[in-house]
Amino acid sequence: MADQYAQSGEHKRPTEIPAIRWEEPPEGPVLVLLDQTRLPAEEVELVCTDASALVEAIRSLAVRGAPLLGIAGAYGVALAAVRGFEVEEAANALAGARPTAVNLALGVRRAQAAHQAALARTGDPRQAADAALAAARALHREDAAASARMAEHGLALLDELLPGGGHRILTHCNTGSLVSGGEGTAFAVALAAHRAGRLRRLWVDETRPLLQGSRLTAYEAARSGMAYTLLTDNAAGSLFAAGEVDAVLVGADRIAADGSVANKVGSYPLAVLARYHHVPFIVVAPVTTVDPDTPDGASVEVEQRPGYEVTEVTVPQVPVTGAGGGVPVAPLGTQAYNPAFDVTPPELVTAIVTEEGVVSPVTAEALAQVCGRARRAADGG
Amino acid sequence: MADQYAQSGEHKRPTEIPAIRWEEPPEGPVLVLLDQTRLPAEEVELVCTDASALVEAIRSLAVRGAPLLGIAGAYGVALAAVRGFEVEEAANALAGARPTAVNLALGVRRAQAAHQAALARTGDPRQAADAALAAARALHREDAAASARMAEHGLALLDELLPGGGHRILTHCNTGSLVSGGEGTAFAVALAAHRAGRLRRLWVDETRPLLQGSRLTAYEAARSGMAYTLLTDNAAGSLFAAGEVDAVLVGADRIAADGSVANKVGSYPLAVLARYHHVPFIVVAPVTTVDPDTPDGASVEVEQRPGYEVTEVTVPQVPVTGAGGGVPVAPLGTQAYNPAFDVTPPELVTAIVTEEGVVSPVTAEALAQVCGRARRAADGG
Repeated sequence: MADQYAQSGEHKRPTEIPAIRWEEPPEGPVLVLLDQTRLPAEEVELVCTDASALVEAIRSLAVRGAPLLGIAGAYGVALAAVRGFEVEEAANALAGARPTAVNLALGVRRAQAAHQAALARTGDPRQAADAALAAARALHREDAAASARMAEHGLALLDELLPGGGHRILTHCNTGSLVSGGEGTAFAVALAAHRAGRLRRLWVDETRPLLQGSRLTAYEAARSGMAYTLLTDNAAGSLFAAGEVDAVLVGADRIAADGSVANKVGSYPLAVLARYHHVPFIVVAPVTTVDPDTPDGASVEVEQRPGYEVTEVTVPQVPVTGAGGGVPVAPLGTQAYNPAFDVTPPELVTAIVTEEGVVSPVTAEALAQVCGRARRAADGG
Repeated sequence: MADQYAQSGEHKRPTEIPAIRWEEPPEGPVLVLLDQTRLPAEEVELVCTDASALVEAIRSLAVRGAPLLGIAGAYGVALAAVRGFEVEEAANALAGARPTAVNLALGVRRAQAAHQAALARTGDPRQAADAALAAARALHREDAAASARMAEHGLALLDELLPGGGHRILTHCNTGSLVSGGEGTAFAVALAAHRAGRLRRLWVDETRPLLQGSRLTAYEAARSGMAYTLLTDNAAGSLFAAGEVDAVLVGADRIAADGSVANKVGSYPLAVLARYHHVPFIVVAPVTTVDPDTPDGASVEVEQRPGYEVTEVTVPQVPVTGAGGGVPVAPLGTQAYNPAFDVTPPELVTAIVTEEGVVSPVTAEALAQVCGRARRAADGG
């Protein structure tokens, strides 16, 4: 096992292309995206000069991840306003680009509301456009700040649970700057540990079927100069058995009121392995992930995704032959069970780290308290 | 979940190409293999007219799987003898085609010994060739018979553990007729349940990184008309949590004297999940898999395989671009942890099913007793 700790030094790179940025070259303002569909093979920037280009980028998944979509939507409204396009039309097109993405619509509506209010107040389209841009930038800043606070709380928790540093952290799926206005959720905690010199190794689950671990988390880890090692999801058991995992860090898609955590499929088996091996299982997510309308794990509706994600392998720059746009690896007509996420009950979750603090042990009461604190802060109370 | 039980009826096919067969067309005897490198996209037969063609087939993994390699090696010696080639030369080339495959050398030497003995006794090359072929056929028959007995014992155990039938069985990797002279090990038990009308569903783990589940087990299940569903390895947790798994059936690469089971990576996490959910975890393997020279799980040396199996995806008929012959899906230079198998301790194994009977609970004494019975039978005692 010793050689698993070798450094991949050649991949430390000081440059960093952010997932999203607003730029104002002489030709006029633009929104620049890192095209995530081309990663990790190529780092390609996608320059949007109007809202319809952004709508296309959202639809093609060039930009993805709930918080990042909200920020993109807000900037899209600002782009339409600054460039003198019809703002309401652009906002509706953006909000509908991915109808199930709640954050996208929320971001769009926030910038649109700021635009309308300023227009009503001043009657000046330029001031209204500035207000939309300011709203987008505020959302971007707030998300980055929430990331930073989660990272701080998460690192403090790690240091408390695992005194002495040298943390070996296992993570699943992609939870870094590619899904966030800041440095993400679970990944941000690992990154904070790395910067503090207390990360020995980031174990990266490849995360089948869509390989967000191989394609995106490994890419982010390499870019950050972290010591990381990729593994197939089913090899995590061997790492636990060998005592090579000190903590598991994952994000969350939704957290029920009782603390049940819906996250990328494969999280629950890690929670069971972590429990069996007495390793902390830590969830990192902003308080907006907690849904008080979902009382418990059983109430979470598990989305079943198309079988071709499992029966075909989608690889970049390869001719498409399967029905799902990939290369078939199973017999034609094979049926697949392909849930998008699984649910981990609160009794298997050591802690939930939010920007408002750490919930541990995970109980409905403790969770409600932290969310209430966040709501009071948002209300300016 | 209900729709997961739909039948994939269009894939019931009465035809069956065996993994290996000896044929005697007018042009002379040949060994016909099912080319496993082309599955599941194509069912292509590979006809070997001499030992060197078989050596090439073994090296290219067109024929694979420990017991099947032994049978292939024995037939290869017979082929050389029947066609009048130099038998010793052919035997040495065959035995060395994959140096670590113990069964291959054993099969080759058995046919070679029969050839030598007959030649010494009769002085007639034709009778010696017949003896080599008879030895190969005997090995083939014995392996098939062991499969059949494992299937019988395994089904009886399932029926005892899960009265009422309607078994929903989860399996990992490939353990069917593609690795055996008969119908395999764990897969043979599922097949017996299917034929007895007592298999409700075979859940097939895709088995990363080499996808033996998608490529081979799904293919065998489809060919047999079984109700099967493919899943990513990390989705098994959701099935357990939903109460959709009645038993786990896996094979074994090696069983230590204390009952620790080394098998394809991903078996151990299934054993932990099975224990957490009170589901039987059953290992099916011939007694030759039990290695009395390996005292316990800690003594099993875990083979680390090349990282490119994880960092690249190998798909049939796709241009090669990565160092490992596949298409890169992770950043270049990414290090991977890629153990070929993992070790499940005896306390997590509900039963070990062999051709000589069932070991349950799994203890060193019970295992030694079953193996002793097998040795006495082999010695004619």
